[in-house]
Amino acid sequence: MRLLARLLAPKVTVHAHCDLPCGVYDPAQARIEAESVKAICEKYQANDDPAFRTRAIDIKEQRSELVKHHLWVLWTDYFKPPHFEKYPQLNTLFNEATKLAGGGGGTKSSADPAVADRLLGKIEEISKIFWETKQA
Amino acid sequence: MRLLARLLAPKVTVHAHCDLPCGVYDPAQARIEAESVKAICEKYQANDDPAFRTRAIDIKEQRSELVKHHLWVLWTDYFKPPHFEKYPQLNTLFNEATKLAGGGGGTKSSADPAVADRLLGKIEEISKIFWETKQA
Amino acid sequence: MRLLARLLAPKVTVHAHCDLPCGVYDPAQARIEAESVKAICEKYQANDDPAFRTRAIDIKEQRSELVKHHLWVLWTDYFKPPHFEKYPQLNTLFNEATKLAGGGGGTKSSADPAVADRLLGKIEEISKIFWETKQA
Amino acid sequence: MRLLARLLAPKVTVHAHCDLPCGVYDPAQARIEAESVKAICEKYQANDDPAFRTRAIDIKEQRSELVKHHLWVLWTDYFKPPHFEKYPQLNTLFNEATKLAGGGGGTKSSADPAVADRLLGKIEEISKIFWETKQA
Amino acid sequence: MRLLARLLAPKVTVHAHCDLPCGVYDPAQARIEAESVKAICEKYQANDDPAFRTRAIDIKEQRSELVKHHLWVLWTDYFKPPHFEKYPQLNTLFNEATKLAGGGGGTKSSADPAVADRLLGKIEEISKIFWETKQA
Amino acid sequence: MRLLARLLAPKVTVHAHCDLPCGVYDPAQARIEAESVKAICEKYQANDDPAFRTRAIDIKEQRSELVKHHLWVLWTDYFKPPHFEKYPQLNTLFNEATKLAGGGGGTKSSADPAVADRLLGKIEEISKIFWETKQA
Repeated sequence: MRLLARLLAPKVTVHAHCDLPCGVYDPAQARIEAESVKAICEKYQANDDPAFRTRAIDIKEQRSELVKHHLWVLWTDYFKPPHFEKYPQLNTLFNEATKLAGGGGGTKSSADPAVADRLLGKIEEISKIFWETKQA
Repeated sequence: MRLLARLLAPKVTVHAHCDLPCGVYDPAQARIEAESVKAICEKYQANDDPAFRTRAIDIKEQRSELVKHHLWVLWTDYFKPPHFEKYPQLNTLFNEATKLAGGGGGTKSSADPAVADRLLGKIEEISKIFWETKQA
Repeated sequence: MRLLARLLAPKVTVHAHCDLPCGVYDPAQARIEAESVKAICEKYQANDDPAFRTRAIDIKEQRSELVKHHLWVLWTDYFKPPHFEKYPQLNTLFNEATKLAGGGGGTKSSADPAVADRLLGKIEEISKIFWETKQA
Repeated sequence: MRLLARLLAPKVTVHAHCDLPCGVYDPAQARIEAESVKAICEKYQANDDPAFRTRAIDIKEQRSELVKHHLWVLWTDYFKPPHFEKYPQLNTLFNEATKLAGGGGGTKSSADPAVADRLLGKIEEISKIFWETKQA
Repeated sequence: MRLLARLLAPKVTVHAHCDLPCGVYDPAQARIEAESVKAICEKYQANDDPAFRTRAIDIKEQRSELVKHHLWVLWTDYFKPPHFEKYPQLNTLFNEATKLAGGGGGTKSSADPAVADRLLGKIEEISKIFWETKQA
Repeated sequence: MRLLARLLAPKVTVHAHCDLPCGVYDPAQARIEAESVKAICEKYQANDDPAFRTRAIDIKEQRSELVKHHLWVLWTDYFKPPHFEKYPQLNTLFNEATKLAGGGGGTKSSADPAVADRLLGKIEEISKIFWETKQA
């Protein structure tokens, strides 16, 4: 039963961050915004009313920025030198993930749900590493 | 197996909001910030350095405001008239919860972890109703 | 009579809010933003230049959010349990008003001045109750 | 006379601003925040609890910034060359008013209600000119 | 000469502002944002994809607002009465510059790089006076 | 030589960023805020008035956050894979620099000017690499 709880754990506890630091972090914050970005992309593709699309682009921009912010916070504030040693791919992973939420082909300039999916995939990879480090 | 998935569901899927609306909501956003507020209160009580406390009060203020914001969004944007009919306590619940994150005895003016706990309790009540309405 | 109104205008006390709390509130803040939203809707209807409309939609989004914020502040921070007892319609009134400034048919997704007018009507109702409670 | 003021109050048109421009402006926005600043100063003087004072200073900082912002908007966006010709004191008036809401002896660095009063006096002068230009 | 400029570049002290006040100011902050506005205008003119243009208008709005903000800060917080006496054109210069970054024909409502150039010219004039006062 | 630097100063191109992307970047934005942070630390050390220190801590927090933000933008938006190959130290450099502007011993939690100096040193290293890549 404890094992089960352990296995489920990564999906259960959600945590926030502040730079006191309060010691509370969770990749869910980035994922939540990325899911919103994906939903916006889907609604955008299904609706060609110019006014709707203007709002969708505007809001997608803001939500993508929040994705970037939450990821940057994890990268700088949560992860420490030993983590980067153990997971040498971490820097590239975060750099690619934040680029995917940006303007050069990321979810800011693209309204393709597939781009949002790639972003969600990167966040999932980060999330997996994050929860491994919490268990260690 | 589906039942199991169902039972786990409230803890698994975390969702965000935007007012497109993207249709993605989750009380976890409010809870995350409230957990951060509680952690700040605990660190505040354990550290009487004036500079530390100034930062703690400042950050607690901002995080409490985020709790209020996320709750207001749920109250206005997610919940519809049928929900208010089915759950007549909803308005009072949200009003009390947001007051508990404010300045008149809530987590803005108080650094008592017990106040943060009461806030977390209200968010839990809201969360339970939220997930019931998602299942309906 | 108009002259009289003119002369009195600068002296009518309008009030703001902060969550110290400073004890200073005024529904005028929400109304001011809602009047701006209405003016934007009118200019939007009168001008079909795409660049102008993009700006109008963008700004209308922000101003509508401010309307919601000012109303939420009144609902949570100014009104107390005795008010809700005396005015049982308050919760619904605030919920409808903030919905009217949102994305599901409110002034965020609609550029119809009539929607802004309905929003202004709700704010007027709130304002009337607010001033009654100040006199009591 | 007070009753009359009361009755007229809800009908006094107060106006906001956006840079569409929507054409809606009102010095009340700056005054509202300045009144909040003054109330904070008074509460600060009456309460020497360090945690309360930290919050008061923090919030006073934000509200003072809002005063400056609302005044800057009027100065740049509402007033036009003919106004500056007719009211040659306008530039100095705005410069002094915004300085009074700042850090060099203004309401950001001072918690003296008398400073907030001087700020309110400047806003009143601006308001008077503003309403004269609206009548012209 | 270009090499020399290159070598000196990293050592040229650029300064920011905060309203403590920290005493650190630099017109470069306004110019930086104005250069961004100009680059956006150029990209806007070269690309008629509606989604791209919506993003460009949205971002140009924000960057123009930052130009206004940085200029207002200089006008209120850095410049003192003796400066205004020595440079009687200062008030008009700042008023015109901030108007050029606004909505009534400035870089918010216009996507013409020539408007951004006029704005940059005004900032250059301000910058020249600023550096003269620093040397004095 | 100082005169020369002075003469060149206004002509040194400083660049900003937006995520259109406009293609305009400059490490000066981070350095400007870091210099402000250092000045705040120095004023903090020289003044033990509690109200002044509260304001200093509050503003230092915001300015440090801006340092982090400007650095994150460079790391994600300006630097591309070939840069990271050529400068393998880049990731660590940015991670250390942003940590130095944070809460765990960085300029948010420390008011020691020496910490701000270390932060400025890291920004200088980043700046040097940045300008090398622009020349390439």
